[in-house]
Amino acid sequence: MEFRVTFSGSRRAARTLWFLILMSLCLFITVCRASSPQEEEDSAMQNIVTEKRAEESHRQDSADLLIFILLLTLTILTIWLFKHRRFRFLHETGLAMIYGLIVGVILRYAVHVPRDVGTASMGCFVNISPATLLVNISGKFYEYTLKGEISANLVNDVQDNEMLRKVTFDPEVFFNILLPPIIFHAGYSLKRRHFFRNMGSILAYAFVGTVISCFVIGLLMYGCVMLMKQFSQLGGDFFFTDCLFYGAIVSATDPVTVLAIFHELQVDADMYALLFGESVLNDAVAVVLSSSIVAYQPQGDNSHTFEVMALLKSFGMFLGVFSGSFSLGVATGVVTALISFFTKLRDFQLLETALFFLMSWSTFLLAEACGFTGVVAVLFCGITQAHYTFNNLSPESQDRTKQLFELLNFLAENFIFSYMGLTLFTFQNHIFNPMFIVGAFLAVFVGRAANIYPLSFLLNLGRRYKIRSNFQHMMMFAGLRGAMTFALSIRDTATFARQMMFSTNLLVVFFTVWVCGGGTTQMLSCQRIRYGVMGLPHVQDENMKVGVDSDQDNSMGLADGSERRSTKQESAWLFRIWYNFDHNYLKPILTHSGPPLTTTLPPCCGPVARLLTSPQAIENECQLKDDDSDLILTDGDINLSYGDITVSTDAMGAHTNSGRSFSGTATSDDLDRELAYGDHELVMRGTRLVLPMDDSEPPFSDSIRNLRM
Amino acid sequence: MEFRVTFSGSRRAARTLWFLILMSLCLFITVCRASSPQEEEDSAMQNIVTEKRAEESHRQDSADLLIFILLLTLTILTIWLFKHRRFRFLHETGLAMIYGLIVGVILRYAVHVPRDVGTASMGCFVNISPATLLVNISGKFYEYTLKGEISANLVNDVQDNEMLRKVTFDPEVFFNILLPPIIFHAGYSLKRRHFFRNMGSILAYAFVGTVISCFVIGLLMYGCVMLMKQFSQLGGDFFFTDCLFYGAIVSATDPVTVLAIFHELQVDADMYALLFGESVLNDAVAVVLSSSIVAYQPQGDNSHTFEVMALLKSFGMFLGVFSGSFSLGVATGVVTALISFFTKLRDFQLLETALFFLMSWSTFLLAEACGFTGVVAVLFCGITQAHYTFNNLSPESQDRTKQLFELLNFLAENFIFSYMGLTLFTFQNHIFNPMFIVGAFLAVFVGRAANIYPLSFLLNLGRRYKIRSNFQHMMMFAGLRGAMTFALSIRDTATFARQMMFSTNLLVVFFTVWVCGGGTTQMLSCQRIRYGVMGLPHVQDENMKVGVDSDQDNSMGLADGSERRSTKQESAWLFRIWYNFDHNYLKPILTHSGPPLTTTLPPCCGPVARLLTSPQAIENECQLKDDDSDLILTDGDINLSYGDITVSTDAMGAHTNSGRSFSGTATSDDLDRELAYGDHELVMRGTRLVLPMDDSEPPFSDSIRNLRM
Repeated sequence: MEFRVTFSGSRRAARTLWFLILMSLCLFITVCRASSPQEEEDSAMQNIVTEKRAEESHRQDSADLLIFILLLTLTILTIWLFKHRRFRFLHETGLAMIYGLIVGVILRYAVHVPRDVGTASMGCFVNISPATLLVNISGKFYEYTLKGEISANLVNDVQDNEMLRKVTFDPEVFFNILLPPIIFHAGYSLKRRHFFRNMGSILAYAFVGTVISCFVIGLLMYGCVMLMKQFSQLGGDFFFTDCLFYGAIVSATDPVTVLAIFHELQVDADMYALLFGESVLNDAVAVVLSSSIVAYQPQGDNSHTFEVMALLKSFGMFLGVFSGSFSLGVATGVVTALISFFTKLRDFQLLETALFFLMSWSTFLLAEACGFTGVVAVLFCGITQAHYTFNNLSPESQDRTKQLFELLNFLAENFIFSYMGLTLFTFQNHIFNPMFIVGAFLAVFVGRAANIYPLSFLLNLGRRYKIRSNFQHMMMFAGLRGAMTFALSIRDTATFARQMMFSTNLLVVFFTVWVCGGGTTQMLSCQRIRYGVMGLPHVQDENMKVGVDSDQDNSMGLADGSERRSTKQESAWLFRIWYNFDHNYLKPILTHSGPPLTTTLPPCCGPVARLLTSPQAIENECQLKDDDSDLILTDGDINLSYGDITVSTDAMGAHTNSGRSFSGTATSDDLDRELAYGDHELVMRGTRLVLPMDDSEPPFSDSIRNLRM
Repeated sequence: MEFRVTFSGSRRAARTLWFLILMSLCLFITVCRASSPQEEEDSAMQNIVTEKRAEESHRQDSADLLIFILLLTLTILTIWLFKHRRFRFLHETGLAMIYGLIVGVILRYAVHVPRDVGTASMGCFVNISPATLLVNISGKFYEYTLKGEISANLVNDVQDNEMLRKVTFDPEVFFNILLPPIIFHAGYSLKRRHFFRNMGSILAYAFVGTVISCFVIGLLMYGCVMLMKQFSQLGGDFFFTDCLFYGAIVSATDPVTVLAIFHELQVDADMYALLFGESVLNDAVAVVLSSSIVAYQPQGDNSHTFEVMALLKSFGMFLGVFSGSFSLGVATGVVTALISFFTKLRDFQLLETALFFLMSWSTFLLAEACGFTGVVAVLFCGITQAHYTFNNLSPESQDRTKQLFELLNFLAENFIFSYMGLTLFTFQNHIFNPMFIVGAFLAVFVGRAANIYPLSFLLNLGRRYKIRSNFQHMMMFAGLRGAMTFALSIRDTATFARQMMFSTNLLVVFFTVWVCGGGTTQMLSCQRIRYGVMGLPHVQDENMKVGVDSDQDNSMGLADGSERRSTKQESAWLFRIWYNFDHNYLKPILTHSGPPLTTTLPPCCGPVARLLTSPQAIENECQLKDDDSDLILTDGDINLSYGDITVSTDAMGAHTNSGRSFSGTATSDDLDRELAYGDHELVMRGTRLVLPMDDSEPPFSDSIRNLRM
């Protein structure tokens, strides 16, 4: 009976929902019409007219924004319906695009708003366009700000298509308002455990892969453009740098759809980490790469020739901007960690959350103000915040910050995708060139393949447990293009080349999001990846799935030794040294969660260590002495994985576990477990491991004696 | 020993904090300087120059915004220190103003940025200033948008004080971005129980009181202006409508400081509700009132004379805009409640929160697009959301939405106050007239007195338990001016009169926030209000304090019958009928928390009732039958307070309470208790009250039989 109630309820809900959707569609079109200008009163007073126009314009802006809000509302309701019915072929972003398309069509063809001519044309004999213009109009001065250049043949259109132009946002909005929360959230929610385990591969895909992809696509497009010139299909200039630029902007992948499905289907966590890590980092690489390519400016008149100096300058700029943004992001993250470490803000969650938010935002602004790339800085800030600051936050603030950025990410992402849909019809300088489009699709495909397959082959030479071919196909398939590609394309649509790129990229995004995104479930089952572990496809390990929070789930069951050892091997050469440094020195200095420095620094540094160790860590140590059976895993333990062979000794001879009992084979899993524990929450506090591996570390009782001296 | 650790920890924290503060101050000034334009390269290409300038301008913007972010960060850290040390003389808003002032001084006098002249002056022979200007500069068209009028004598300043002008925000930012979350949060966090109990008084203070205050201040200021004319101290026009406008904008009180201290000290909840309710509603009244006064436009040439028609038009506009905004706000609130009622969004908290946020925001946009006042609409939307939608949200979303708007409110508020401090030095059209300032302070004081004392006297005639004189003094004292007054003043600073108002209002805000806000603790102890109940100052009722969440605390201890009965009397004539309607019909239709309609509608409406009742409410009913001893208080009960004498019968003869046991005298407290329960969370589910008071309601077993038919 209960089932029937639910069923009829959901059916009624669906009906109501569609009713609501229809209602709101009608509503917003009414609003659009309602906000069309009323006739001006016959008042002679110019002030009133000006005021009226300002009000008018404000009302129009509100109505335009309202369109997007209602679009997002519709998207949310429909997503709910899809989720409710477990319909997985269309992700929310794809849906947002469809709604955007529909509204774009309506705005373009159905709504015709007769505008009064609020635009005047005037000649001027200044030789540079000034940023601010003071116009003396019949004795009064008015201030005008530069909005941008308009190509001469569109001047008349400007006056006609006021409505369409109104719903067009300043492209910088995407870079300065919408992208930062998305990128920050990506960094903040990186599943660090699996990310660090696969760091080598991820870095290879992100850096080497993106550069390969950029150049392969650039070269192919150059060939395509040459061909078009042959057939005289090209309506304007398209230089090699433009091709490379296109390669750079289209190399930023955004497999949000795929990842959402992975998450829902609980697919292999390592695969998730590889894909997610790659897409997050290649966004950063693509942004910096594209700006370096734009900065390629050979001296002299022939500005599109090859020149070594200019190339080196571009390359230097790439390195400079990337490392600058990286350090800035890490620096603000560390500052935030220090603030939250030294103050007791955790008693006031609102202040804590606000501080966290402001510091993260200031990273972006600081980077932009210094001429670096804010988006990249924000990404590394997010990772740093997650790694250090998060541990100092109170549990409430941990939830709050997570939820806040989750919400911002959701809103920004869906906004961008619905705007994408809208812009297909409302953008007025589209140049759709069939040949270029076909070439671009081909190049994008080949570029992705040239990134994934050769690199996977090379990486497999170094990895003990290989990236299997079905997984490589999946990575190839998951090379969707999304928000970053769009934002980079729309940023500058002044020249012919850029306009053609923009139009083509829109189509690339549509195709990949709808076709590749929609086909993920099929592809997964076709490649038989679901529930399989990357290296060992037949191990049905519950703990390897991307679950609600796999970082914590995993820490509970460490049964499969063979599989774990693979991790060791894989992360050994690149990662281990850094990990130990981080765990022994950085974490204790920056967070409350590491071991006290007094135990990790050599004894000679005792005073310094005591100065830098947080009272909380010392308290933990003291507690440790009081109640000997607990808490060492939290702050003691470690130093277990120097060298290639790791041995962990269980000093007490037994694991005490709160929930499930460990199997006896818990050797050498400590690095893994530590990572899992370091992640976000301490799930279990009942295990004691004392590991006198590193001889630079004094025996445990000594360290406490040091502390008490 | 533990104490010592904490103490030394906090001391070190303080030292570190000040170090950090100094560091960030240095940092941001460095940034400001760093972002000053570098010399342009000697490149002839105009495009590059234009691009460079755009980048320059973007960097400058980032740096400016960064200043505010760092200001807020500083404020947060200092607030933490104050809270940590229990230092209550300065509220965070007061502190934000001080930091703003400091930075304003630095920007004004210490930082001097030599700007390249990016501004050109040109003459034009159009008779109306167009909204968009297309300028043909050596063959290329550039688009310029109207920013505003600049008075002729300031044209040269514009070029000089670029830096100062850069940190000046568009005044509309306050109205369209910063105020809405503040006002929404106020509505969303109204303690509804005490608000509704004192609704009559609150409405009287807010509507009648604000109008009185507006006219008293207006008249006094007119006298002052006349006097200034006599002494020829007036440098420009100042009409009677300007005086009234000043009265309106300065009548919006904002006792945020006082309320924060009330909250911390756990002062009388009724007093809190009265003050908070009044200040929230009078903001709305002041906004609409001021726009109505601006709209007062007599026909003909002599535009500042008295004319009945224009007055009536203004009055009509006041009513129209207010009721329009009110209905819009309530309507979107109801729509949100319906959506969350009919869909099962509660399974997906992210979607739910996003929907809630978007719908609340769309209220604002919708109101603005329709020509109503967004801020007012948002206020009533907030109240409606709290009253209906909140009950349909999942517990996680309840927390999320609360926390989200709390954060937004915090950030927006502190931003506005620090901007206020900044603007005292960076605003360039200040007109400080000593006579006007003295007059204004006097008028503000008298206006507040003319609002509180006579109204309290009149209200006391109708209230059984009076608003005591010490409480009246406190209300008088708590008449701080804040964000709303500032936003209304800065919105239009074009004329001489407006500029003088703005400068004066800044001083009024500073004075009231620092002096009145800072003196609240003293004033409270001086008036002996702390811990006293408004009507009965000697009753030390723990439950009447404004605690962490007094709505819920109160529901637990209902011991004091006499005091409760006062509530009955007070809210009887205005509130009871609405309350019953709301509880019996609106709540069941809009939320999952009311009684099923099948029990509240007359039997003849059975089919309709069944159609509209949510499955959940029916399920609750069914559960009721299964487990007879529970849950009726949640969905059954009620209808107990028709007429003036309320009798509640306890059908089972005993109260079963989960935590504390009730005293036996629980007659007639049900309205109160119901309100407490309706608020945000059901704390206790163990009491059963069946109250067969209203004969339109079928006996309980009947209603269940109806349901099963």
